Amino acid sequence: MDKYIKLYETERVKINKILALALKDRNPISLYEPGSYILNSGGKRLRPLLVLLSAKAVGGKFKDAYNAAAAVEMLHNFTLVHDDIMDNADKRRGRLTLHKKYDHNTAILAGDSLLSIAYEFLLKDCNGNAKEVISSFTQGLIEVCEGQSLDTDFELRKNVSLAEYIVMIKKKTAAMAEMCCRIGALLGGGTKAQVIALGNYGLNLGIAFQIQDDLLDISADEKEFGKTIGGDLVEGKKTFLFLEALEKSKGEDRKKLLKVIEKKGIRRNQVSGYKMIYEKLGVLDDARSEIRLYTLKALRSIHPLNEENKKIFKWLADSLIYRTS
Amino acid sequence: MDKYIKLYETERVKINKILALALKDRNPISLYEPGSYILNSGGKRLRPLLVLLSAKAVGGKFKDAYNAAAAVEMLHNFTLVHDDIMDNADKRRGRLTLHKKYDHNTAILAGDSLLSIAYEFLLKDCNGNAKEVISSFTQGLIEVCEGQSLDTDFELRKNVSLAEYIVMIKKKTAAMAEMCCRIGALLGGGTKAQVIALGNYGLNLGIAFQIQDDLLDISADEKEFGKTIGGDLVEGKKTFLFLEALEKSKGEDRKKLLKVIEKKGIRRNQVSGYKMIYEKLGVLDDARSEIRLYTLKALRSIHPLNEENKKIFKWLADSLIYRTS
Repeated sequence: MDKYIKLYETERVKINKILALALKDRNPISLYEPGSYILNSGGKRLRPLLVLLSAKAVGGKFKDAYNAAAAVEMLHNFTLVHDDIMDNADKRRGRLTLHKKYDHNTAILAGDSLLSIAYEFLLKDCNGNAKEVISSFTQGLIEVCEGQSLDTDFELRKNVSLAEYIVMIKKKTAAMAEMCCRIGALLGGGTKAQVIALGNYGLNLGIAFQIQDDLLDISADEKEFGKTIGGDLVEGKKTFLFLEALEKSKGEDRKKLLKVIEKKGIRRNQVSGYKMIYEKLGVLDDARSEIRLYTLKALRSIHPLNEENKKIFKWLADSLIYRTS
Repeated sequence: MDKYIKLYETERVKINKILALALKDRNPISLYEPGSYILNSGGKRLRPLLVLLSAKAVGGKFKDAYNAAAAVEMLHNFTLVHDDIMDNADKRRGRLTLHKKYDHNTAILAGDSLLSIAYEFLLKDCNGNAKEVISSFTQGLIEVCEGQSLDTDFELRKNVSLAEYIVMIKKKTAAMAEMCCRIGALLGGGTKAQVIALGNYGLNLGIAFQIQDDLLDISADEKEFGKTIGGDLVEGKKTFLFLEALEKSKGEDRKKLLKVIEKKGIRRNQVSGYKMIYEKLGVLDDARSEIRLYTLKALRSIHPLNEENKKIFKWLADSLIYRTS
């Protein structure tokens, strides 16, 4: 496992280097300096890793896909910049969000521009199958927009089902992970079956990842997590845990949960009370089983890969679902 | 000439039909209804026409390029939606702008989504040369972002040269026309030389078109123009006319022109006074010669086309530079 961590660190440094150079020497500075600000603000770089590992898993080389790996990270950052405007968020990765550091107009345009450069980078790695690669990338983009729109709808709606929630996170989070695996496999020269298999790995891992995100928000160790727990409840977010709790609850508990929707959130000092409701209803455990379920689905879908490749994808899945922040 | 007008009308109707259907039956409605609102708000559909005519000019057929024609219009509408937010504009094509009809967040996301669907449509028409087609499209997108950023910079800067202005409109307006002609020619199966020739036509026509836009704003017949003249001066825009006047002026005139920059615009009742300065300095005629110059460049670049094709591109250029609104 140490060798995988080392590989991840090595590749992360390389991706960071590509991203640091991507907008250098471009003009106007008023456009590309804000773009660089977000591209160089850290991040796990998990999406580029999915691209690289998928390329290698089908017999390709990392070097076939570095530009595509940078492209998916640019696409991801484009979504962060625009989402942060829409959420009126102040901080991202410990720094001011782009629209707070600069202004709204700059952030809209810098986001658009990141997306344009993402396509430019993706094209660099495209050869024979450009159409398929760019179709997958575009499909990921379409779904992330749809997912963001659903997410916004859910904020305003009173009744959202768990099934609807899964559709939303599939689009908003998991479709992008699916796309990363697909384009990696395509650029590595994978067969149709391999592209589908790796795409399914990404999709299911993405869903598990998002539910894990919801779970960490209420159950993490605050020190390791790096922020106060219960933020989703405070903001009144309709997470997996909240919707599961709502579907299972009756009587007083249900009334209290409905109040979160009605009041669009709770006070910080109410978090522990709500956590107790979650525990009583068993929704933390439900989330854990759901995470296990989707992770198993992810791993089953890459069954045809060879042992060495399966091991690294297993390691990646484990690192994500056992993460503490 | 009547036959060209008829052809334009016929194709415009077809393009409108494709655009009307493009977002139908897509979900969520909260995302695609706003997108349809702007796509179905009219417009000259000149960019799609450039795509279609370019495909035919190199021996292809209109039907090779209808999806691409719709794609460039979607890209254009994406820029309009985001530009209108940045300019805080209330009206577009006689209707409320998207962010006024809905809200800022919806407009940001609907714009992003239009761009994603634009790539989807473009891909439908791509076959052997997908990489080149999408590269051209992406280059157009990159430049339009850069042009918008320069335009914003110029608003804040006190000294902008005429040469800088030409660079800005090349990026913000002309690069998109260039791209339309390039992808039309590529999809029609044109040679490298034909793609470059038609691209140059689009680029130069685009520059002429923008200078004509600046000229119309001060010299048009208000009835035909459909809005009050002098709007650019009122808003303190650094147009071709204004920058040319500034470069030629001395003494009192120069002081008055500098005041427009300082005060970020003038009052409506000052427009006629400034128009007199423009006339005295001869900048209306300068604009007319510049428009002629770029139009000639455009027409010279398509010299290798056959007579029938040259005629239609000549008709198009004439319609644009002799337009009154």
